[in-house]
Amino acid sequence: GQCVSEKDASQDENLSILSLNPRVQTHAAIHSTGAKKAERKHWKRNPEKSCDSCVKLENNFDDIKHTTLSERGALREAFRCLKCADAPCQKSCPTNLEIKSFITSISNKNYYGAAKAILSDNPLGLTCGMVCPTSELCVGGCNLFASEEGPINIGGLQQFAVEVFSKMGIPQVRNPDLPPPDDMPESFHAKIALIGCGPASISCASYLARLGYDNITVFEKQKYIGGLSTAEIPQFRLPYEVVQFEIELMKDLGVKVVLEKGLGMNGMSLASLKDEGFQAVFIGIGLPQANKAKIFQGLTVDQGFYTSKDFLPLVAKASKAGMCSCKSQLPELRGVVIVLGAGDTAFDCATSALRCGARRVFVVFRKGFTNIRAVPEEMELAKEEKCEFLPFLFPREVIMKNGRVAGLQFCRTEQTERGDWLEDEDQIVRLKADYIISAFGSMLTDPQSKDAMAPIKLNRWGTPDLDPETMQSSEPWVFAGGDIAGLANTTVESVNDGKQASWHIHKYLQSLHGQTVDSTPALPLFNCAIDTVDISVEMCGITFPNPFGLASAPPTTSTAMIRRAFQQGWGFALTKTFGLDKVQTDRDREREMHTCTLESNVHLMGMGLACGQDPVMVMNICRWVRQTAKIPFFAKLTPNVTNIVDIAKAAHEGGADGVTATNTVSGMMGLKADSTPWPGIGKGKRTTYGGVSGNAIRPIALRAVSAIGRALPGFPILATGGIDSAETGLQFLHAGASVLQICSAVQNQDFTLIEDYCLGLKALLYLKSVEELTSWDGQSPPTLRHQKGKPVTRVEELVGKSLPSFGPYLLEKTEVLAEYKKKLQDVNDNFVGDTNAARVFMPKKPVPAVKDVIARALKHIGAYVELDNQEQVIALIDEEMCINCGKCYMTCNDSGYQAITFDPETHFPVITDSCTGCTLCLSVCPIIDCIKMVTRPTAYVPKRGLPQAVNPIC
Amino acid sequence: GQCVSEKDASQDENLSILSLNPRVQTHAAIHSTGAKKAERKHWKRNPEKSCDSCVKLENNFDDIKHTTLSERGALREAFRCLKCADAPCQKSCPTNLEIKSFITSISNKNYYGAAKAILSDNPLGLTCGMVCPTSELCVGGCNLFASEEGPINIGGLQQFAVEVFSKMGIPQVRNPDLPPPDDMPESFHAKIALIGCGPASISCASYLARLGYDNITVFEKQKYIGGLSTAEIPQFRLPYEVVQFEIELMKDLGVKVVLEKGLGMNGMSLASLKDEGFQAVFIGIGLPQANKAKIFQGLTVDQGFYTSKDFLPLVAKASKAGMCSCKSQLPELRGVVIVLGAGDTAFDCATSALRCGARRVFVVFRKGFTNIRAVPEEMELAKEEKCEFLPFLFPREVIMKNGRVAGLQFCRTEQTERGDWLEDEDQIVRLKADYIISAFGSMLTDPQSKDAMAPIKLNRWGTPDLDPETMQSSEPWVFAGGDIAGLANTTVESVNDGKQASWHIHKYLQSLHGQTVDSTPALPLFNCAIDTVDISVEMCGITFPNPFGLASAPPTTSTAMIRRAFQQGWGFALTKTFGLDKVQTDRDREREMHTCTLESNVHLMGMGLACGQDPVMVMNICRWVRQTAKIPFFAKLTPNVTNIVDIAKAAHEGGADGVTATNTVSGMMGLKADSTPWPGIGKGKRTTYGGVSGNAIRPIALRAVSAIGRALPGFPILATGGIDSAETGLQFLHAGASVLQICSAVQNQDFTLIEDYCLGLKALLYLKSVEELTSWDGQSPPTLRHQKGKPVTRVEELVGKSLPSFGPYLLEKTEVLAEYKKKLQDVNDNFVGDTNAARVFMPKKPVPAVKDVIARALKHIGAYVELDNQEQVIALIDEEMCINCGKCYMTCNDSGYQAITFDPETHFPVITDSCTGCTLCLSVCPIIDCIKMVTRPTAYVPKRGLPQAVNPIC
Repeated sequence: GQCVSEKDASQDENLSILSLNPRVQTHAAIHSTGAKKAERKHWKRNPEKSCDSCVKLENNFDDIKHTTLSERGALREAFRCLKCADAPCQKSCPTNLEIKSFITSISNKNYYGAAKAILSDNPLGLTCGMVCPTSELCVGGCNLFASEEGPINIGGLQQFAVEVFSKMGIPQVRNPDLPPPDDMPESFHAKIALIGCGPASISCASYLARLGYDNITVFEKQKYIGGLSTAEIPQFRLPYEVVQFEIELMKDLGVKVVLEKGLGMNGMSLASLKDEGFQAVFIGIGLPQANKAKIFQGLTVDQGFYTSKDFLPLVAKASKAGMCSCKSQLPELRGVVIVLGAGDTAFDCATSALRCGARRVFVVFRKGFTNIRAVPEEMELAKEEKCEFLPFLFPREVIMKNGRVAGLQFCRTEQTERGDWLEDEDQIVRLKADYIISAFGSMLTDPQSKDAMAPIKLNRWGTPDLDPETMQSSEPWVFAGGDIAGLANTTVESVNDGKQASWHIHKYLQSLHGQTVDSTPALPLFNCAIDTVDISVEMCGITFPNPFGLASAPPTTSTAMIRRAFQQGWGFALTKTFGLDKVQTDRDREREMHTCTLESNVHLMGMGLACGQDPVMVMNICRWVRQTAKIPFFAKLTPNVTNIVDIAKAAHEGGADGVTATNTVSGMMGLKADSTPWPGIGKGKRTTYGGVSGNAIRPIALRAVSAIGRALPGFPILATGGIDSAETGLQFLHAGASVLQICSAVQNQDFTLIEDYCLGLKALLYLKSVEELTSWDGQSPPTLRHQKGKPVTRVEELVGKSLPSFGPYLLEKTEVLAEYKKKLQDVNDNFVGDTNAARVFMPKKPVPAVKDVIARALKHIGAYVELDNQEQVIALIDEEMCINCGKCYMTCNDSGYQAITFDPETHFPVITDSCTGCTLCLSVCPIIDCIKMVTRPTAYVPKRGLPQAVNPIC
Repeated sequence: GQCVSEKDASQDENLSILSLNPRVQTHAAIHSTGAKKAERKHWKRNPEKSCDSCVKLENNFDDIKHTTLSERGALREAFRCLKCADAPCQKSCPTNLEIKSFITSISNKNYYGAAKAILSDNPLGLTCGMVCPTSELCVGGCNLFASEEGPINIGGLQQFAVEVFSKMGIPQVRNPDLPPPDDMPESFHAKIALIGCGPASISCASYLARLGYDNITVFEKQKYIGGLSTAEIPQFRLPYEVVQFEIELMKDLGVKVVLEKGLGMNGMSLASLKDEGFQAVFIGIGLPQANKAKIFQGLTVDQGFYTSKDFLPLVAKASKAGMCSCKSQLPELRGVVIVLGAGDTAFDCATSALRCGARRVFVVFRKGFTNIRAVPEEMELAKEEKCEFLPFLFPREVIMKNGRVAGLQFCRTEQTERGDWLEDEDQIVRLKADYIISAFGSMLTDPQSKDAMAPIKLNRWGTPDLDPETMQSSEPWVFAGGDIAGLANTTVESVNDGKQASWHIHKYLQSLHGQTVDSTPALPLFNCAIDTVDISVEMCGITFPNPFGLASAPPTTSTAMIRRAFQQGWGFALTKTFGLDKVQTDRDREREMHTCTLESNVHLMGMGLACGQDPVMVMNICRWVRQTAKIPFFAKLTPNVTNIVDIAKAAHEGGADGVTATNTVSGMMGLKADSTPWPGIGKGKRTTYGGVSGNAIRPIALRAVSAIGRALPGFPILATGGIDSAETGLQFLHAGASVLQICSAVQNQDFTLIEDYCLGLKALLYLKSVEELTSWDGQSPPTLRHQKGKPVTRVEELVGKSLPSFGPYLLEKTEVLAEYKKKLQDVNDNFVGDTNAARVFMPKKPVPAVKDVIARALKHIGAYVELDNQEQVIALIDEEMCINCGKCYMTCNDSGYQAITFDPETHFPVITDSCTGCTLCLSVCPIIDCIKMVTRPTAYVPKRGLPQAVNPIC
């Protein structure tokens, strides 16, 4: 009757909403090959394969690194990392960076912990995260090369962690183990000069300052800092802020930087430095002159000829805001540009040329593709931007026209069977070109610099002759590193040269003062205010250095294991059941009853399934123990009960000093398809129920801890169940825990996790005191509008609507953005570098102690009826971040309120007024913070179901 | 005393075991740049970048596809797929393949379900999974291009699923909805000829047979089947077995294949076919002749000149076992080979040439890299194998020496600003070469074939003039597709041509017999014996078509939603709480009490937290309901109780017809770092405990179901809690469930999942009846020894030890394997193709019904004390699969029994006699089945702790 027709109406309405929803396939459809060719153009997301005029990059210096990661991307990648034993990534890093540790910290959302690990071994860790040719370094050793999913994006993770830390606004501090500067021995006040403010010197000076030296000066001949990182690596690979940040960290330790002073300038020489009282000098001046082939002698920039040393600094000065007062216009290129060379610099020239207006770029090199010096990822960027490549050509003669470059004539090279390279003068190839950029490497030819280095011994390349282990020159007080030292091929190797030299400068300076240094080199780690946060806790009169302990579980079954755990820094350990005659095996688990440890002064009593489920028994057992135990004891509660609060109350009443919440959850992991369990014991394939632990039970444990915390305020709770990071540990502290116990996380890794947990907790407590960071969630900064971790320009502001990134919309978007970037060139002539303004945030309130945060969340937790259903929210989708997957649309339609529609052409989802704010869409969205819940402007009025007036007849 | 020194001894022992274990970093270490350069060579896993003579591929036809996946890799990749709404991958596939559905099935371990979806839309789905240039097709549209992790490996997933299905040994059957062949209308007995047994014809014939036609003949002029797939795509990209498998599937439907008959051969022509009574013809002969430039006229293979059409079939015949009796020797190449062209065929020639002994291969093409016709992934393989590339060269003259090819002379090409291509005869480039292989595409020039096609109209390329929508020629009874039709550039487009033509041939044939066909084209899906398995269940006298229903939860809150669910095939639905005046919102959840549905004839009664936790109340409520309810009713049990079995018994005693186990688990999802919950309601950010559902609670639900099943045999259980596939559903059936309820999985996707669940369950039941597959776990075949999904040759058998895949070991391994492959050439001269022997496995026992499998697992589950601790196991590591991560080593040391050592050089883990078989190592190993548990040869003797004789003094 009426009721039925009403339903049909609402069904029709819903069917139209659901029109794009998937249906079970009942037949194979047919579409002609031609029709499908047209259709797939609409949905194409990757760039057109054969499009040689579609890349418009003029004045676009946006990040182009494939490795850049959003927080979401970083967490996924960090989680994927295996954190291998004796990890080969570290062994393959020139600075020996403890990569698996910093990735562990990232996966635990402890970004300071990660940054500390990185900056400890590499003071230019952010630069290196961006520019390292990782496929030949850390990534080249990644064990995941042996898996389908491939190696870890280590550079991207490194970049991500240090970038987040840089936003925390925390300066570097001296090693807190050192005496105050005034109490340092005289030797540490020695005057040290570093020449050239590039990666090698920054690294060397940072370590010397960390060691305690306080009279360090870096001299830089240019008007800007950073050396090659600033002058030659383009902004779209290495932004200037990065160099600035790393130099500020160095300066935090008191290192002075003097600009426009260099070897051979205004009389500065090793001799003059000695006269000025410098006791040690580090030369890190790089190779400042271009290697220019004879045929290019006499050619000028005005004629259309550049070396990379001419070209790249010009581009840098025009594109790096704040670099110096030396800002220039971008070189205006047009037409065809030939870049000579096949190193990373050549590819940087090629991609930079496109940003200066080149229509077409040819990268021409003398050998084949198999001999290219750049790593594949460096060449790849040029390839994507549609540069062309010409191998086996040797430049012979510049073709001039009207006094300008008009082309270049080459002869062909070939390799003999023996491997020698021949040039065939009979085979001539000519390329028309409007510009030539030569990138044939660098050298030191400037006679002033050379003379200023006297009396140190130079080698046949005219650079200092060094001991490759100590970086010491023929003059014991003079050291060198970086390009000029001839060992480093990469920035990170220059950094390592500086690091290596710092120790030997230290050794040398101490020997000058009659001191010897430890035979095992040990450079201090990176330190900042976070490191000094106190995370000790007191419970029942016992103080623990930190709240993280090992749960009574497999990692605590032998004294050797527990001892190793304490060496790594664990706050406490609860031993697994043991007897003194023989170690117990896992098989004893069901019968466990924890007893006294050797080394602890606490009883922990595990309440097994039988007795632990009955409040009366728990109370009685606790009473018996209380009568004999002189030391504190705790009851470990099973979660397999109707009301864990009742059991906790019974333990409390029975005199226990606290409870552990919770033990494992009884469960059965799974069955194989033949109905047998795994593991199945013996021929009978028999099993029994086990205890589920780890992350899966965290919601249960968190509920138990908070419920006990609400019922028994102040009663100590030792929380356990899915604590696998400082961040999750803090959740349990907030929920009412006094200390934290861990097992599963250690089983999945090893005991060194404790370092990450402690640092992470220190950081979380520290950040609570920084007012500028209240929009952060712990160590996570607010999510910027981005795609693939790269900030996006709001197309909506340019064209009045958002455009998805595929097919015709992508083309339109690309055009719009190219136009926008080109225009920027005219308007940002006067950019000023004031990026240092807010680098440091000082805490304005005290950093809380652990005890201050315990139980802080309890005020937010209550009964359902206490929630205010008038404070309504609605979902808001950010179209610029949306990847058009429609997950929100599907779940809202089949499991929600049919409140999202989905555009069949643009694949943008649209929230309608039917949204109840249920958050289901947000839960399934793969892009974090693409969907947010915002206050609902009007009260929600249900529109589905039957109108209220209808008299039910069913 | 004594006790302490004993401990110290055991500690020392452990410390040495732990020597490689990670330690918390206390300082930055220093290592010179030179030392690190040497060290990283030892750990390098990726190939040397600049190694032009290190690739030794002679006679190595092993799979080289990057896309190939192991089961582990496929599951990871399938899980990563978003299964988008209105998915662009499908829209970008020429055959309109429902990609997200097949990936959903893979992630649910329903490999038949995936294969059925694939083969339904593409009868050559395995071939296409291997050879499709996916970056320009499905993958090009993947929404995950907008994420850091990048698009899905769709080709690899497609390959994986169909390969697994092929191993199941199940033939294709006719559409079961059709009448038996004898009852088919006369029109379906029409004689149909398809000419050329390549992808287009195989596709077309398969669909015609699925439609019900039973007199279909494919004529093939060669001695072998498969066309281009067999003759030209190399074994290392597309093995011959694949072609054979797909043709066998076609033959399963009665299609006949006749070899050595072709158009223009022995008088066969369209006219002769008409005379023989063929009522429709499909021409799918490809383009059989090479496009050979003038300068190569007259050159022969003996002189060192090949076209791709000469070369590739020779390589195929020598490397594809079982292809035909036409086996030949591999062409013996040496020295330098020039390959001309830049299509996928050119790259196939280049990589094949290396396998024939070429020392160096140059791929030379007329335009630039931005104009290459092949997709990047096709070119990439040649690049990895160190082929060299020379762009912008046009071949002008062959250089001959002693009657043999000695080189090739080119002129340079260049592109004008307008985009035109010019050849500059003044710029001459000469390349020495021992062989030239020209791959300039194909054409139809053979006059016999052309004449035989009379009287159909040909176009200016000499190929049939076709309607691009119907593939019909000027003669209504003649259709064509594939290369000869001029629309298809890829195998998959040829397949689609055949698919498209099949419908129009059907339409034409029916019209001949005066029948009209449906205006909406609808081709039958792929079918096999699995599709007909009965999965209906009966419970309390009600029969459900399948055991999968929607739980009383968000997806069942409106009639429109439930109706859509039933349309998609759900077995039943339990409505969410509702009243008739207004739809209820989520906020009512806590007060829910399920009542009668409109459409169901079952009561489901949710036991809330308050009353559901007390057995007496549950019993009483059930009694009251029993007194009034005439229809079956079930009590939904909360898992938040001490003993769920007691509650189930109470419901049973109270007269309930069964129970649902279990409701959600009470929990709290998490807190933000500022101690507020998410979601937090209103300004106060308040929350309450929620119900955890989905996979996380599966172990709890599985335990509950099996415990109730053991306590109350035969009492119906409606299982719910983490059922998200047929595979997990079967676990619950095995554990004692009668039917299965689902919610979370639908929330994460949509209602169409039901199709996957039903097919998956059918497959699981079917496979139980196949004796040959008892080593499978459900639809998962046993894991072959592999790396990255590719079978590995056991190096141990060749050199007496395993070698890891990095640094010096990798070099040694590569040498050994190259040597081994080269030798094989001499020994496998007489291979015989008998790969069809065991293609079909027939069930030898009846396929079980759902009721037959219910509760099958219960006999394996019991108390701990019933387990036999004498049946001990020990871990066994497969070194050939090991990726050297040392996860097993770390967990065994810090959380286990210190029973694994780890070689500091080879990074191979070694299991010692201390292994207790605890399985922790296996749990953390990232490579499935790399570690297995095997029977322990000797009884386990604990070696740590104190000797039994020592008198404890602590």
